[in-house]
Amino acid sequence: MSETREQILEEIKIQGDLVRKLKATKEPKEKIDEEVSRLLALKNKLGEGPSQTQKFVLKTPKGTRDYAPKQMMLRQNVLDKIIAVFKKHGGEAIDTPVFELKEVLTGKYGEDSKLIYDLKDQGGEILSLRYDLTVPLARYLAMNKISNIKRYHIAKVYRRDNPAMTRGRYREFYQCDFDIAGSYDPMLADSECVKIVSEILDTLAIGDYVIKLNHRQLLDGMFEACGVPNDKFRSICSAVDKLDKSPWPEVRKEMIEEKGLLPDTADKIGEYVRLSGDRELIEKLLADEQLKNIPSAVKGLKDMHLLFKYCHIMGLSDKINFDLSLARGLDYYTGVIYECVLKAEPKMLNGCSEEQGTVGSVAGGGRYDNLVGMFDTKGKQVPCVGVSIGVERIFSVLEAKYAADGIKQRTNEVEVMVMSAHKGLHEKRLSILNDLWNQGIKAEHFYKLNPKLLNQLQYCEENQIPLAVVLGDSELEKGKVKLREISTRKEEDVLLANLSDEIKKRLH
Amino acid sequence: MSETREQILEEIKIQGDLVRKLKATKEPKEKIDEEVSRLLALKNKLGEGPSQTQKFVLKTPKGTRDYAPKQMMLRQNVLDKIIAVFKKHGGEAIDTPVFELKEVLTGKYGEDSKLIYDLKDQGGEILSLRYDLTVPLARYLAMNKISNIKRYHIAKVYRRDNPAMTRGRYREFYQCDFDIAGSYDPMLADSECVKIVSEILDTLAIGDYVIKLNHRQLLDGMFEACGVPNDKFRSICSAVDKLDKSPWPEVRKEMIEEKGLLPDTADKIGEYVRLSGDRELIEKLLADEQLKNIPSAVKGLKDMHLLFKYCHIMGLSDKINFDLSLARGLDYYTGVIYECVLKAEPKMLNGCSEEQGTVGSVAGGGRYDNLVGMFDTKGKQVPCVGVSIGVERIFSVLEAKYAADGIKQRTNEVEVMVMSAHKGLHEKRLSILNDLWNQGIKAEHFYKLNPKLLNQLQYCEENQIPLAVVLGDSELEKGKVKLREISTRKEEDVLLANLSDEIKKRLH
Repeated sequence: MSETREQILEEIKIQGDLVRKLKATKEPKEKIDEEVSRLLALKNKLGEGPSQTQKFVLKTPKGTRDYAPKQMMLRQNVLDKIIAVFKKHGGEAIDTPVFELKEVLTGKYGEDSKLIYDLKDQGGEILSLRYDLTVPLARYLAMNKISNIKRYHIAKVYRRDNPAMTRGRYREFYQCDFDIAGSYDPMLADSECVKIVSEILDTLAIGDYVIKLNHRQLLDGMFEACGVPNDKFRSICSAVDKLDKSPWPEVRKEMIEEKGLLPDTADKIGEYVRLSGDRELIEKLLADEQLKNIPSAVKGLKDMHLLFKYCHIMGLSDKINFDLSLARGLDYYTGVIYECVLKAEPKMLNGCSEEQGTVGSVAGGGRYDNLVGMFDTKGKQVPCVGVSIGVERIFSVLEAKYAADGIKQRTNEVEVMVMSAHKGLHEKRLSILNDLWNQGIKAEHFYKLNPKLLNQLQYCEENQIPLAVVLGDSELEKGKVKLREISTRKEEDVLLANLSDEIKKRLH
Repeated sequence: MSETREQILEEIKIQGDLVRKLKATKEPKEKIDEEVSRLLALKNKLGEGPSQTQKFVLKTPKGTRDYAPKQMMLRQNVLDKIIAVFKKHGGEAIDTPVFELKEVLTGKYGEDSKLIYDLKDQGGEILSLRYDLTVPLARYLAMNKISNIKRYHIAKVYRRDNPAMTRGRYREFYQCDFDIAGSYDPMLADSECVKIVSEILDTLAIGDYVIKLNHRQLLDGMFEACGVPNDKFRSICSAVDKLDKSPWPEVRKEMIEEKGLLPDTADKIGEYVRLSGDRELIEKLLADEQLKNIPSAVKGLKDMHLLFKYCHIMGLSDKINFDLSLARGLDYYTGVIYECVLKAEPKMLNGCSEEQGTVGSVAGGGRYDNLVGMFDTKGKQVPCVGVSIGVERIFSVLEAKYAADGIKQRTNEVEVMVMSAHKGLHEKRLSILNDLWNQGIKAEHFYKLNPKLLNQLQYCEENQIPLAVVLGDSELEKGKVKLREISTRKEEDVLLANLSDEIKKRLH
């Protein structure tokens, strides 16, 4: 299927025209860059070969970014805290390949399937980049016939979405999932997921939050009670899901005009979805004339009742909220669903959200009892419930918070800088560094034979390195070095033989 | 470019024939599975749509695998130790996207470029999966105009190689790189990389090792001295690189028959590449009649001399070896190159290597001063030296070692199992668990209302959970629970108020 030179030249002409047009109409720079990069890729096809200097726009692919050391430090701190909570609850880590056979992903994401990244057919299997971590988990469980696991998985996923990078939405982003698979008694695993979300948000200390709870079977029962035809449950559910971004009249319009509901039916739904509350509301709905004869509604409400009881035992009562407008986008949920939203503090809002009052969802999940069975040859089900922590949003919130608080994060953990006070000491420096490294002390030096003392000191201050060992002939003759505390500028002569002990004492 | 139904049907017919042929000739199962999966993908294209049970072979893509909890635990332990060494030397983490613009990778890997995974052109940019972490680093440095950094990067890379999974070679695998970028005095950064490799191998305690050292400029000078034409330096270098797997006569044959060297020239090279030794050999070569008039050879030897001196100061003399047969595959090296090989212990050899005496390379790297400049519009160079730790091989070696030693690794870190001795205690269990979690204790329970005591105890033994809290009405009436040590089966009644303190005491 390789193209002829003429075909490529024709494509280059068309692409060149497009770029000129975009530039003429002053389209956004990102868009122009993208088309320029396509143009250069075409030119590359002509076999002009590699050159010593680059001719293309130097950038990361659209919707992606590099993480600099400062961001990595923040990210690792956040992930470490989250992993500690997962482990506290018995979580085990797994990892799966970044791509899956395309068929594994087919038919799992509804209309979002168009956002899946496919790999080029280079001979061999047809592959796609993973879209989330839940479908790979289901594939893993079915493939290995695993019917019980508490697993966590932290990895990047890929969606060819329209990136809104200023609002923290990317095409490549981290997901951080904890799921409990197995056939258990109702709500014990489900409530532990709520507890885990709460512990994570508490340990990250990013502000007040509320965990909204609802139940897919209650939603279905409620739709049934309102007169929604069976085959429209999922699409009406998607419409309800938009209530966190759109006002009711808009959602109502969508239900009637796009989804074909009767106005009366939509209005009935409107009555329900504006309800939120606690156990009292559950009791009230259990007595509701329209719902109490619908088995799935009653089943959902009884689950919610039990969930609230368990959450109460775990001290979560003031953090949870029963919210009938919570629907969640994905098709595969079959039971409890939850979503955790931060209550905004003004300084956090910067760059994180356009919404009033909240900075949006930082965790979400629910029960999906039928997904694993889709991969099992005999359709054997493994019920699952899980939660996904929105770490990308959490990173953004914390970055904004540190910026607002003027906190300057370190990007490395160096404890000691080993310096020369004058020329000719680099071998002695290496020898002392070697001792410190062998003692487990984090230490560095300038990779210069004779660096200037002032530059070395400045480097310590800029990089918040707490201690410096300063080498000079006069001290070395006595078997000593100067140990300097950078913040106070206090210096003391220390015997080389005691140096690492002295450093450890000061660090702890 | 979408295909017609007829085209797809034709492709299905051809693919079906291929599968039947493969089956008839009893080809390897992996190969058949791959073609079957292509066939099913084609059938999928006909729009038969998703089904409730899967029709395709349930597997991970060719050359990839899942990591189960046991493997993840081992992997994370290894990576934590490596990261600790990187941080001890002032390393900062960065991360880059899993894919790059295709042009970024073009012209960097020589003939290995054919192994690059491309993404499908779905409109937008032309992308490829990263092939290593070095080229993305160079792109990152050039793009952000960074001229000094000590960065580490641990991430998966992708190569459409013929996988040899039994020997630990995959299409998706981890790389673990540490690089020092910046214009510095000779060999200071280079020798620190050698030190880092040595510290990592020591801390992992996977056995004796040797770090082979050589220099690209010395190799070039040696080729020049032997009469190799300038334009054949890189391809002769590739031939030398094969000496760790092939005997000299084979490599000699390749040089003469494939690369067109004169037999006499090849024989001269043969004399040099069988040399290995220490500082004495460097001195000897500095006096070598053929080499001493060739500037690049002298430059390389002087660097080696300095490198050996610095390594000696850092206590590495008995771990390094100057080896003229070391060449390294990649084109971009310009100075010192190194490779660390394990000296085999018999029990480690299992599944890890077919070679005699060593289990192969577990780290390698070198200096590449010209790569960053390839990305800079003005060709500005940022000299770099770095090392890549072969963590996949290290994982394999350790897995084999643990298996041989009969070590059973834990897959989670649970400290306490909270159990019911009889029915009706699940709410009390939740309440106690909640206290333990809030105290930071790693605890779990069965997600059953009334699990059997025996099952709960068995679970602890199987999963090496050290402690159990056993709830029973008679103890609870006195405000107590039984605290049981699983290994000794000793039990003691403990006041609920003291429970978490008592548990912490026993754990530490």
